Amino acid sequence: MARRLAYLGPPGTFSEEAAHRYDSEAQRSPFSSFAAVVEATRAGEADEGVLAIENSLEGSVPDTLDLLIQEDRLRIRRELVIPIEHCLLALPGTESGAIRAIYSHPNALGQCREYLQRRFPQAQAFAALSTVAAVEGLRASDEPAAAIAPGRAAQLYDVEILERGIQDRANNVTRFVILASEDHPPTGADKTSVCFAFDQDKPGLLYDAMGVFALRGINLVKVESRPTKESLGRYIFLVDLEGHREDGRVREALEVLGRDASMLKVFGSYPQYRDG
Amino acid sequence: MARRLAYLGPPGTFSEEAAHRYDSEAQRSPFSSFAAVVEATRAGEADEGVLAIENSLEGSVPDTLDLLIQEDRLRIRRELVIPIEHCLLALPGTESGAIRAIYSHPNALGQCREYLQRRFPQAQAFAALSTVAAVEGLRASDEPAAAIAPGRAAQLYDVEILERGIQDRANNVTRFVILASEDHPPTGADKTSVCFAFDQDKPGLLYDAMGVFALRGINLVKVESRPTKESLGRYIFLVDLEGHREDGRVREALEVLGRDASMLKVFGSYPQYRDG
Repeated sequence: MARRLAYLGPPGTFSEEAAHRYDSEAQRSPFSSFAAVVEATRAGEADEGVLAIENSLEGSVPDTLDLLIQEDRLRIRRELVIPIEHCLLALPGTESGAIRAIYSHPNALGQCREYLQRRFPQAQAFAALSTVAAVEGLRASDEPAAAIAPGRAAQLYDVEILERGIQDRANNVTRFVILASEDHPPTGADKTSVCFAFDQDKPGLLYDAMGVFALRGINLVKVESRPTKESLGRYIFLVDLEGHREDGRVREALEVLGRDASMLKVFGSYPQYRDG
Repeated sequence: MARRLAYLGPPGTFSEEAAHRYDSEAQRSPFSSFAAVVEATRAGEADEGVLAIENSLEGSVPDTLDLLIQEDRLRIRRELVIPIEHCLLALPGTESGAIRAIYSHPNALGQCREYLQRRFPQAQAFAALSTVAAVEGLRASDEPAAAIAPGRAAQLYDVEILERGIQDRANNVTRFVILASEDHPPTGADKTSVCFAFDQDKPGLLYDAMGVFALRGINLVKVESRPTKESLGRYIFLVDLEGHREDGRVREALEVLGRDASMLKVFGSYPQYRDG
Protein backbone atom coordinates (compact mmCIF):
# COMPACT_ATOMS: atom_id res chain seq x y z
CA MET A 1 0.00 0.00 0.00
CA ALA A 2 1.26 3.47 -0.86
CA ARG A 3 2.69 5.54 1.93
CA ARG A 4 0.36 8.38 3.06
CA LEU A 5 2.15 11.74 3.36
CA ALA A 6 0.73 14.89 4.97
CA TYR A 7 2.10 18.24 3.77
CA LEU A 8 1.37 21.98 3.84
CA GLY A 9 -0.98 22.55 0.91
CA PRO A 10 -2.46 23.42 -1.40
CA PRO A 11 -0.88 21.27 -4.15
CA GLY A 12 1.85 23.25 -5.90
CA THR A 13 3.69 24.45 -2.78
CA PHE A 14 7.35 23.75 -2.12
CA SER A 15 6.15 21.41 0.65
CA GLU A 16 4.30 19.34 -1.93
CA GLU A 17 7.43 19.31 -4.08
CA ALA A 18 9.40 18.03 -1.09
CA ALA A 19 6.78 15.32 -0.47
CA HIS A 20 6.92 14.35 -4.15
CA ARG A 21 10.73 14.15 -4.14
CA TYR A 22 10.75 12.13 -0.94
CA ASP A 23 8.35 9.51 -2.33
CA SER A 24 6.79 10.09 -5.73
CA GLU A 25 4.57 7.00 -5.28
CA ALA A 26 3.08 8.22 -1.99
CA GLN A 27 -0.51 9.30 -1.54
CA ARG A 28 -0.14 13.02 -0.69
CA SER A 29 -2.70 14.91 1.41
CA PRO A 30 -2.59 18.72 1.77
CA PHE A 31 -3.26 20.43 5.12
CA SER A 32 -3.70 24.10 5.93
CA SER A 33 -0.85 24.54 8.45
CA PHE A 34 2.22 22.75 9.79
CA ALA A 35 0.22 22.18 13.02
CA ALA A 36 -2.48 20.39 11.02
CA VAL A 37 0.20 18.26 9.29
CA VAL A 38 1.49 17.16 12.69
CA GLU A 39 -2.03 16.53 14.01
CA ALA A 40 -2.96 14.36 11.00
CA THR A 41 0.21 12.31 11.42
CA ARG A 42 -0.40 11.89 15.14
CA ALA A 43 -3.98 10.79 14.46
CA GLY A 44 -2.86 8.19 11.93
CA GLU A 45 -4.56 9.92 8.98
CA ALA A 46 -1.08 10.02 7.45
CA ASP A 47 1.91 7.73 7.97
CA GLU A 48 4.39 10.60 7.81
CA GLY A 49 4.33 14.40 7.79
CA VAL A 50 6.54 16.81 5.83
CA LEU A 51 7.66 20.01 7.58
CA ALA A 52 9.94 22.81 6.35
CA ILE A 53 12.48 23.44 9.12
CA GLU A 54 15.19 25.75 7.76
CA ASN A 55 15.87 27.95 4.74
CA SER A 56 19.40 28.87 3.66
CA LEU A 57 18.51 32.58 3.38
CA GLU A 58 15.77 33.03 5.96
CA GLY A 59 16.98 30.76 8.74
CA SER A 60 14.80 28.45 10.81
CA VAL A 61 11.03 28.05 10.44
CA PRO A 62 9.75 29.08 13.89
CA ASP A 63 6.42 27.22 13.67
CA THR A 64 8.17 23.92 12.98
CA LEU A 65 10.66 24.34 15.83
CA ASP A 66 7.81 25.12 18.23
CA LEU A 67 5.83 22.10 17.03
CA LEU A 68 8.86 19.85 17.55
CA ILE A 69 9.43 21.28 21.05
CA GLN A 70 5.79 20.53 21.98
CA GLU A 71 5.59 17.14 20.24
CA ASP A 72 5.76 14.03 22.45
CA ARG A 73 4.97 11.19 20.07
CA LEU A 74 6.37 11.79 16.58
CA ARG A 75 10.05 11.74 15.66
CA ILE A 76 12.20 13.01 12.83
CA ARG A 77 12.75 10.05 10.48
CA ARG A 78 14.40 11.77 7.51
CA GLU A 79 15.73 15.11 6.31
CA LEU A 80 15.58 16.43 2.76
CA VAL A 81 17.09 19.54 1.13
CA ILE A 82 15.41 21.02 -1.96
CA PRO A 83 16.18 24.12 -4.05
CA ILE A 84 13.69 27.00 -3.76
CA GLU A 85 13.08 28.42 -7.19
CA HIS A 86 10.48 31.13 -7.74
CA CYS A 87 9.00 31.09 -11.24
CA LEU A 88 7.00 33.60 -13.26
CA LEU A 89 3.78 31.93 -14.41
CA ALA A 90 1.07 33.17 -16.77
CA LEU A 91 -1.94 31.87 -18.68
CA PRO A 92 -1.00 30.18 -21.97
CA GLY A 93 -0.40 32.73 -24.72
CA THR A 94 0.44 35.68 -22.42
CA GLU A 95 3.15 37.95 -23.87
CA SER A 96 5.81 39.05 -21.36
CA GLY A 97 5.78 42.59 -22.73
CA ALA A 98 2.05 42.99 -22.14
CA ILE A 99 2.07 42.07 -18.44
CA ARG A 100 0.69 44.87 -16.24
CA ALA A 101 -0.10 42.99 -13.00
CA ILE A 102 2.02 40.59 -10.90
CA TYR A 103 0.31 38.55 -8.19
CA SER A 104 1.91 36.69 -5.28
CA HIS A 105 2.30 36.37 -1.53
CA PRO A 106 4.01 39.58 -0.35
CA ASN A 107 6.99 37.56 0.93
CA ALA A 108 7.58 36.10 -2.55
CA LEU A 109 7.13 39.53 -4.16
CA GLY A 110 9.77 40.82 -1.73
CA GLN A 111 12.20 38.04 -2.65
CA CYS A 112 11.90 38.98 -6.35
CA ARG A 113 11.77 42.78 -5.93
CA GLU A 114 14.91 43.60 -7.94
CA TYR A 115 13.91 41.24 -10.74
CA LEU A 116 10.47 42.83 -10.99
CA GLN A 117 11.89 46.38 -11.05
CA ARG A 118 14.32 45.40 -13.80
CA ARG A 119 12.04 43.32 -16.03
CA PHE A 120 8.56 44.69 -15.32
CA PRO A 121 8.91 48.34 -14.27
CA GLN A 122 5.47 49.03 -15.80
CA ALA A 123 3.66 46.30 -13.85
CA GLN A 124 1.87 46.73 -10.53
CA ALA A 125 2.29 44.20 -7.70
CA PHE A 126 -0.82 42.72 -6.09
CA ALA A 127 -0.92 40.70 -2.89
CA ALA A 128 -2.37 37.18 -2.76
CA LEU A 129 -2.98 35.00 0.31
CA SER A 130 -0.48 32.40 -1.03
CA THR A 131 1.63 31.78 -4.14
CA VAL A 132 -0.82 29.14 -5.29
CA ALA A 133 -3.78 31.49 -4.73
CA ALA A 134 -1.90 33.94 -6.97
CA VAL A 135 -1.88 31.36 -9.78
CA GLU A 136 -5.57 30.62 -9.29
CA GLY A 137 -6.28 34.36 -9.42
CA LEU A 138 -4.70 34.78 -12.88
CA ARG A 139 -7.97 33.87 -14.61
CA ALA A 140 -9.80 36.63 -12.72
CA SER A 141 -7.41 39.40 -13.76
CA ASP A 142 -8.79 42.12 -16.05
CA GLU A 143 -5.40 42.81 -17.61
CA PRO A 144 -2.46 40.63 -18.76
CA ALA A 145 -1.03 39.24 -15.55
CA ALA A 146 1.62 36.91 -14.15
CA ALA A 147 2.07 35.15 -10.82
CA ILE A 148 5.19 34.31 -8.80
CA ALA A 149 4.94 30.71 -7.59
CA PRO A 150 6.80 27.38 -7.46
CA GLY A 151 7.28 25.77 -10.88
CA ARG A 152 5.31 22.77 -9.67
CA ALA A 153 2.18 24.93 -9.64
CA ALA A 154 2.43 25.23 -13.45
CA GLN A 155 1.95 21.49 -13.90
CA LEU A 156 -1.07 21.44 -11.63
CA TYR A 157 -2.93 24.57 -12.74
CA ASP A 158 -2.44 24.57 -16.53
CA VAL A 159 -0.39 27.75 -16.76
CA GLU A 160 2.93 28.40 -18.49
CA ILE A 161 6.34 29.09 -16.98
CA LEU A 162 7.66 32.33 -18.51
CA GLU A 163 10.88 32.30 -16.49
CA ARG A 164 12.51 30.16 -13.79
CA GLY A 165 14.68 31.13 -10.81
CA ILE A 166 13.64 34.79 -10.68
CA GLN A 167 14.47 35.31 -6.97
CA ASP A 168 17.05 38.04 -6.29
CA ARG A 169 19.37 35.91 -4.16
CA ALA A 170 20.97 32.64 -5.25
CA ASN A 171 21.68 29.60 -3.07
CA ASN A 172 18.11 29.39 -1.85
CA VAL A 173 17.45 25.90 -0.46
CA THR A 174 15.07 24.64 2.20
CA ARG A 175 15.63 21.75 4.57
CA PHE A 176 12.55 19.62 5.29
CA VAL A 177 12.10 16.98 7.98
CA ILE A 178 9.81 13.97 7.76
CA LEU A 179 8.00 13.14 11.00
CA ALA A 180 6.85 9.58 11.73
CA SER A 181 5.99 7.42 14.72
CA GLU A 182 9.58 6.13 14.80
CA ASP A 183 12.88 7.68 13.83
CA HIS A 184 15.41 5.95 11.54
CA PRO A 185 17.68 2.98 12.42
CA PRO A 186 21.43 3.75 12.36
CA THR A 187 23.06 3.94 8.91
CA GLY A 188 26.59 5.00 9.89
CA ALA A 189 26.14 8.59 8.62
CA ASP A 190 23.42 10.00 10.83
CA LYS A 191 22.34 13.17 12.58
CA THR A 192 20.43 13.56 15.82
CA SER A 193 18.28 16.59 16.70
CA VAL A 194 17.62 17.46 20.35
CA CYS A 195 16.40 20.36 22.47
CA PHE A 196 17.05 21.19 26.09
CA ALA A 197 16.52 23.93 28.68
CA PHE A 198 17.69 24.87 32.17
CA ASP A 199 15.78 26.07 35.21
CA GLN A 200 18.33 28.74 36.02
CA ASP A 201 19.97 31.43 33.92
CA LYS A 202 23.56 31.58 35.14
CA PRO A 203 26.82 32.00 33.21
CA GLY A 204 28.18 28.90 31.51
CA LEU A 205 25.14 26.57 31.54
CA LEU A 206 24.97 26.28 27.76
CA TYR A 207 28.75 26.06 27.68
CA ASP A 208 28.72 23.14 30.10
CA ALA A 209 26.01 21.47 28.02
CA MET A 210 28.07 21.83 24.85
CA GLY A 211 31.08 20.50 26.71
CA VAL A 212 29.19 17.24 27.26
CA PHE A 213 29.33 16.77 23.48
CA ALA A 214 32.74 18.32 22.78
CA LEU A 215 34.51 16.16 25.38
CA ARG A 216 33.18 13.06 23.60
CA GLY A 217 34.26 14.28 20.14
CA ILE A 218 30.69 14.76 18.95
CA ASN A 219 30.39 17.48 16.29
CA LEU A 220 27.54 19.96 16.69
CA VAL A 221 26.19 20.78 13.25
CA LYS A 222 23.83 23.48 14.47
CA VAL A 223 23.09 25.34 17.70
CA GLU A 224 20.11 27.61 18.04
CA SER A 225 18.19 29.24 20.89
CA ARG A 226 14.43 29.78 20.78
CA PRO A 227 12.73 32.18 23.17
CA THR A 228 10.36 30.37 25.50
CA LYS A 229 6.77 31.59 25.18
CA GLU A 230 6.80 32.99 28.73
CA SER A 231 9.03 35.98 28.02
CA LEU A 232 11.76 37.27 25.78
CA GLY A 233 15.14 36.32 27.19
CA ARG A 234 14.68 32.77 28.50
CA TYR A 235 15.68 30.24 25.93
CA ILE A 236 15.28 26.66 24.80
CA PHE A 237 18.38 25.38 23.02
CA LEU A 238 18.13 23.32 19.85
CA VAL A 239 21.13 21.28 18.74
CA ASP A 240 21.79 19.09 15.69
CA LEU A 241 24.71 16.73 16.27
CA GLU A 242 26.53 14.17 14.17
CA GLY A 243 25.81 10.57 15.13
CA HIS A 244 22.86 8.36 16.01
CA ARG A 245 21.21 8.37 19.43
CA GLU A 246 22.02 4.65 19.69
CA ASP A 247 25.77 5.27 19.20
CA GLY A 248 27.59 4.72 22.50
CA ARG A 249 29.10 8.22 22.70
CA VAL A 250 25.89 9.99 21.76
CA ARG A 251 23.84 7.86 24.14
CA GLU A 252 26.23 8.62 26.99
CA ALA A 253 26.28 12.36 26.24
CA LEU A 254 22.48 12.54 26.22
CA GLU A 255 22.31 10.68 29.55
CA VAL A 256 24.73 13.13 31.16
CA LEU A 257 22.94 16.14 29.67
CA GLY A 258 19.57 14.78 30.82
CA ARG A 259 20.80 14.88 34.42
CA ASP A 260 21.80 18.57 34.25
CA ALA A 261 18.97 19.99 32.15
CA SER A 262 15.46 20.76 33.36
CA MET A 263 14.18 19.44 30.01
CA LEU A 264 15.77 17.29 27.32
CA LYS A 265 13.95 15.98 24.27
CA VAL A 266 15.34 13.89 21.41
CA PHE A 267 13.53 14.83 18.19
CA GLY A 268 15.05 11.81 16.45
CA SER A 269 18.03 10.31 14.61
CA TYR A 270 18.04 10.10 10.83
CA PRO A 271 20.42 9.70 7.85
CA GLN A 272 22.35 12.86 6.89
CA TYR A 273 20.94 14.17 3.62
CA ARG A 274 23.17 13.75 0.58
CA ASP A 275 22.27 15.17 -2.80
CA GLY A 276 21.42 12.84 -5.67
CA MET B 1 18.27 70.13 16.37
CA ALA B 2 15.95 67.16 16.44
CA ARG B 3 17.50 63.75 15.96
CA ARG B 4 16.80 62.24 12.52
CA LEU B 5 15.60 58.60 12.68
CA ALA B 6 15.28 56.22 9.73
CA TYR B 7 12.73 53.38 10.06
CA LEU B 8 10.88 50.78 7.98
CA GLY B 9 7.81 52.63 6.69
CA PRO B 10 5.23 53.57 5.83
CA PRO B 11 4.10 55.53 8.91
CA GLY B 12 1.90 53.34 11.09
CA THR B 13 4.20 50.28 11.19
CA PHE B 14 5.51 48.78 14.42
CA SER B 15 8.91 50.13 13.36
CA GLU B 16 7.52 53.66 13.40
CA GLU B 17 6.01 52.97 16.81
CA ALA B 18 9.44 51.87 18.04
CA ALA B 19 11.02 55.02 16.59
CA HIS B 20 8.34 57.14 18.28
CA ARG B 21 8.85 55.43 21.65
CA TYR B 22 12.61 55.78 21.39
CA ASP B 23 12.44 59.53 20.77
CA SER B 24 9.05 61.16 20.29
CA GLU B 25 10.75 64.47 19.38
CA ALA B 26 12.81 63.00 16.57
CA GLN B 27 12.28 63.70 12.91
CA ARG B 28 11.22 60.28 11.54
CA SER B 29 11.83 59.25 7.92
CA PRO B 30 10.26 56.09 6.46
CA PHE B 31 12.25 53.75 4.14
CA SER B 32 11.09 50.79 2.10
CA SER B 33 13.36 48.08 3.58
CA PHE B 34 15.74 47.47 6.47
CA ALA B 35 18.58 47.65 3.92
CA ALA B 36 17.45 51.14 2.90
CA VAL B 37 17.29 52.17 6.59
CA VAL B 38 20.92 51.09 7.02
CA GLU B 39 21.98 52.77 3.79
CA ALA B 40 20.35 56.09 4.78
CA THR B 41 22.06 56.00 8.17
CA ARG B 42 25.42 55.19 6.58
CA ALA B 43 24.99 58.05 4.13
CA GLY B 44 24.21 60.53 6.92
CA GLU B 45 20.63 61.14 5.73
CA ALA B 46 19.63 59.97 9.20
CA ASP B 47 21.52 60.08 12.51
CA GLU B 48 20.24 56.68 13.63
CA GLY B 49 18.34 53.76 12.13
CA VAL B 50 15.71 51.55 13.77
CA LEU B 51 15.76 47.81 12.95
CA ALA B 52 13.56 45.00 14.27
CA ILE B 53 15.91 42.18 15.32
CA GLU B 54 13.88 39.58 17.24
CA ASN B 55 10.27 38.69 17.97
CA SER B 56 9.28 36.66 21.03
CA LEU B 57 7.11 34.29 18.95
CA GLU B 58 8.82 34.29 15.57
CA GLY B 59 12.47 34.41 16.57
CA SER B 60 15.16 36.49 14.89
CA VAL B 61 14.62 38.78 11.90
CA PRO B 62 16.95 37.26 9.27
CA ASP B 63 17.33 40.43 7.17
CA THR B 64 18.55 42.43 10.15
CA LEU B 65 21.06 39.78 11.22
CA ASP B 66 22.45 39.64 7.68
CA LEU B 67 22.69 43.44 7.51
CA LEU B 68 24.58 43.50 10.81
CA ILE B 69 26.95 40.77 9.63
CA GLN B 70 27.75 42.77 6.47
CA GLU B 71 27.88 46.18 8.15
CA ASP B 72 31.35 47.69 8.77
CA ARG B 73 30.60 51.22 9.94
CA LEU B 74 27.43 51.42 12.05
CA ARG B 75 27.07 50.01 15.55
CA ILE B 76 24.22 49.06 17.86
CA ARG B 77 23.70 52.00 20.22
CA ARG B 78 20.48 51.01 21.97
CA GLU B 79 17.95 48.22 22.23
CA LEU B 80 14.21 48.62 22.75
CA VAL B 81 11.44 46.08 23.39
CA ILE B 82 7.87 46.94 22.38
CA PRO B 83 4.61 44.94 22.55
CA ILE B 84 3.18 43.80 19.20
CA GLU B 85 -0.56 44.28 19.28
CA HIS B 86 -2.65 43.65 16.18
CA CYS B 87 -5.81 45.75 16.04
CA LEU B 88 -8.99 45.54 14.01
CA LEU B 89 -9.52 48.86 12.23
CA ALA B 90 -12.46 50.13 10.19
CA LEU B 91 -13.80 53.35 8.69
CA PRO B 92 -15.70 55.48 11.22
CA GLY B 93 -19.27 54.24 11.65
CA THR B 94 -18.65 50.64 10.51
CA GLU B 95 -20.74 48.07 12.46
CA SER B 96 -18.82 44.96 13.52
CA GLY B 97 -21.75 42.74 12.60
CA ALA B 98 -21.83 44.01 9.02
CA ILE B 99 -18.18 43.30 8.18
CA ARG B 100 -17.79 40.94 5.22
CA ALA B 101 -14.15 41.57 4.20
CA ILE B 102 -10.93 41.60 6.26
CA TYR B 103 -7.77 42.99 4.67
CA SER B 104 -4.17 42.54 5.83
CA HIS B 105 -0.72 41.17 5.07
CA PRO B 106 -1.09 37.36 4.93
CA ASN B 107 1.32 36.99 7.88
CA ALA B 108 -0.91 39.18 10.08
CA LEU B 109 -4.03 37.34 8.89
CA GLY B 110 -2.28 34.10 9.89
CA GLN B 111 -1.44 35.45 13.36
CA CYS B 112 -5.13 36.29 13.95
CA ARG B 113 -6.66 33.22 12.25
CA GLU B 114 -8.45 31.80 15.31
CA TYR B 115 -9.83 35.21 16.25
CA LEU B 116 -11.20 35.74 12.73
CA GLN B 117 -12.82 32.30 12.63
CA ARG B 118 -14.47 32.92 15.99
CA ARG B 119 -15.63 36.52 15.55
CA PHE B 120 -16.04 36.89 11.78
CA PRO B 121 -16.92 33.45 10.35
CA GLN B 122 -18.95 35.18 7.62
CA ALA B 123 -16.11 37.46 6.45
CA GLN B 124 -13.64 36.73 3.67
CA ALA B 125 -9.91 37.40 4.08
CA PHE B 126 -8.13 39.46 1.42
CA ALA B 127 -4.37 39.88 1.05
CA ALA B 128 -2.69 43.29 1.13
CA LEU B 129 0.96 44.12 0.43
CA SER B 130 1.36 45.44 4.03
CA THR B 131 -0.79 46.08 7.08
CA VAL B 132 -0.75 49.79 6.35
CA ALA B 133 -1.75 49.19 2.71
CA ALA B 134 -4.70 47.22 4.12
CA VAL B 135 -5.84 50.30 6.05
CA GLU B 136 -5.45 52.49 2.97
CA GLY B 137 -7.50 49.97 0.99
CA LEU B 138 -10.52 50.20 3.31
CA ARG B 139 -11.94 53.16 1.39
CA ALA B 140 -11.86 51.19 -1.86
CA SER B 141 -13.84 48.25 -0.52
CA ASP B 142 -17.31 47.67 -2.00
CA GLU B 143 -18.65 46.06 1.17
CA PRO B 144 -18.24 46.78 4.91
CA ALA B 145 -14.61 45.93 5.64
CA ALA B 146 -11.96 45.91 8.36
CA ALA B 147 -8.16 45.81 8.34
CA ILE B 148 -5.69 44.16 10.71
CA ALA B 149 -2.89 46.64 11.48
CA PRO B 150 -0.96 48.29 14.31
CA GLY B 151 -3.06 50.63 16.47
CA ARG B 152 -0.76 53.47 15.50
CA ALA B 153 -2.14 53.30 11.95
CA ALA B 154 -5.55 54.39 13.31
CA GLN B 155 -4.15 57.74 14.46
CA LEU B 156 -2.48 58.36 11.11
CA TYR B 157 -5.18 57.26 8.67
CA ASP B 158 -8.40 58.48 10.35
CA VAL B 159 -9.96 55.08 10.97
CA GLU B 160 -11.40 53.60 14.18
CA ILE B 161 -10.06 50.81 16.36
CA LEU B 162 -12.84 48.23 16.75
CA GLU B 163 -10.75 45.90 18.91
CA ARG B 164 -7.17 45.73 20.25
CA GLY B 165 -4.87 42.78 20.82
CA ILE B 166 -6.65 40.37 18.45
CA GLN B 167 -3.64 38.14 17.76
CA ASP B 168 -4.09 34.46 18.73
CA ARG B 169 -0.95 34.20 20.86
CA ALA B 170 -0.13 36.38 23.85
CA ASN B 171 3.33 37.59 24.92
CA ASN B 172 4.12 39.00 21.51
CA VAL B 173 6.96 41.53 21.81
CA THR B 174 9.63 42.65 19.36
CA ARG B 175 13.15 43.73 20.17
CA PHE B 176 14.49 46.61 18.08
CA VAL B 177 18.06 47.86 17.81
CA ILE B 178 19.11 51.43 17.06
CA LEU B 179 22.13 51.72 14.74
CA ALA B 180 24.39 54.77 14.88
CA SER B 181 27.95 55.72 13.98
CA GLU B 182 29.03 54.95 17.56
CA ASP B 183 27.78 52.52 20.15
CA HIS B 184 26.92 53.53 23.74
CA PRO B 185 29.38 54.39 26.54
CA PRO B 186 29.37 52.00 29.53
CA THR B 187 26.45 52.38 31.98
CA GLY B 188 27.16 49.45 34.32
CA ALA B 189 24.26 47.34 32.97
CA ASP B 190 25.17 46.71 29.37
CA LYS B 191 25.00 44.09 26.66
CA THR B 192 27.41 43.47 23.80
CA SER B 193 26.45 41.79 20.51
CA VAL B 194 29.11 40.03 18.42
CA CYS B 195 29.37 37.55 15.57
CA PHE B 196 32.17 35.18 14.65
CA ALA B 197 32.99 32.29 12.31
CA PHE B 198 35.67 29.65 11.83
CA ASP B 199 37.49 28.45 8.74
CA GLN B 200 37.20 24.82 9.70
CA ASP B 201 34.25 22.72 10.77
CA LYS B 202 35.61 20.40 13.41
CA PRO B 203 34.08 19.22 16.71
CA GLY B 204 34.26 21.63 19.61
CA LEU B 205 35.10 24.92 17.86
CA LEU B 206 31.96 26.70 19.04
CA TYR B 207 32.39 25.05 22.42
CA ASP B 208 35.93 26.43 22.71
CA ALA B 209 34.65 29.86 21.68
CA MET B 210 31.97 29.80 24.35
CA GLY B 211 34.55 28.66 26.87
CA VAL B 212 36.42 31.89 26.29
CA PHE B 213 33.41 33.68 27.82
CA ALA B 214 32.40 31.05 30.39
CA LEU B 215 35.89 30.89 31.92
CA ARG B 216 35.73 34.64 32.54
CA GLY B 217 32.27 34.50 34.14
CA ILE B 218 30.62 36.32 31.22
CA ASN B 219 26.97 35.36 30.79
CA LEU B 220 25.78 34.66 27.26
CA VAL B 221 22.26 36.01 26.88
CA LYS B 222 21.72 34.56 23.43
CA VAL B 223 23.52 32.22 21.03
CA GLU B 224 22.38 31.75 17.47
CA SER B 225 23.83 30.33 14.28
CA ARG B 226 23.07 31.77 10.83
CA PRO B 227 23.79 29.81 7.69
CA THR B 228 26.44 31.49 5.57
CA LYS B 229 25.21 32.43 2.12
CA GLU B 230 27.59 29.98 0.45
CA SER B 231 25.76 26.82 1.44
CA LEU B 232 23.47 25.32 4.02
CA GLY B 233 25.47 23.85 6.87
CA ARG B 234 28.32 26.35 7.41
CA TYR B 235 27.44 28.83 10.08
CA ILE B 236 28.19 32.27 11.47
CA PHE B 237 27.59 32.43 15.22
CA LEU B 238 25.84 35.42 16.81
CA VAL B 239 26.22 35.95 20.53
CA ASP B 240 24.71 38.52 22.93
CA LEU B 241 26.69 38.71 26.16
CA GLU B 242 26.34 40.65 29.40
CA GLY B 243 28.86 43.45 29.84
CA HIS B 244 30.41 46.29 27.83
CA ARG B 245 33.18 45.75 25.29
CA GLU B 246 35.32 48.17 27.34
CA ASP B 247 34.99 46.04 30.50
CA GLY B 248 38.28 44.29 31.26
CA ARG B 249 36.93 40.75 31.14
CA VAL B 250 34.89 41.30 27.97
CA ARG B 251 37.78 43.04 26.23
CA GLU B 252 40.12 40.18 27.09
CA ALA B 253 37.62 37.53 25.96
CA LEU B 254 37.10 39.26 22.61
CA GLU B 255 40.88 39.50 22.09
CA VAL B 256 41.32 35.78 22.71
CA LEU B 257 38.36 34.88 20.51
CA GLY B 258 39.66 37.14 17.74
CA ARG B 259 42.87 35.08 17.59
CA ASP B 260 41.02 31.77 17.11
CA ALA B 261 38.20 32.85 14.80
CA SER B 262 38.50 33.50 11.07
CA MET B 263 36.11 36.44 11.53
CA LEU B 264 35.03 38.39 14.62
CA LYS B 265 32.81 41.46 14.53
CA VAL B 266 31.54 43.53 17.46
CA PHE B 267 28.10 44.93 16.58
CA GLY B 268 28.24 47.21 19.60
CA SER B 269 27.71 47.64 23.35
CA TYR B 270 24.53 49.26 24.68
CA PRO B 271 22.42 49.55 27.84
CA GLN B 272 20.25 46.53 28.63
CA TYR B 273 16.64 47.46 27.97
CA ARG B 274 14.45 47.87 31.05
CA ASP B 275 10.73 48.49 30.82
CA GLY B 276 9.30 51.82 31.96
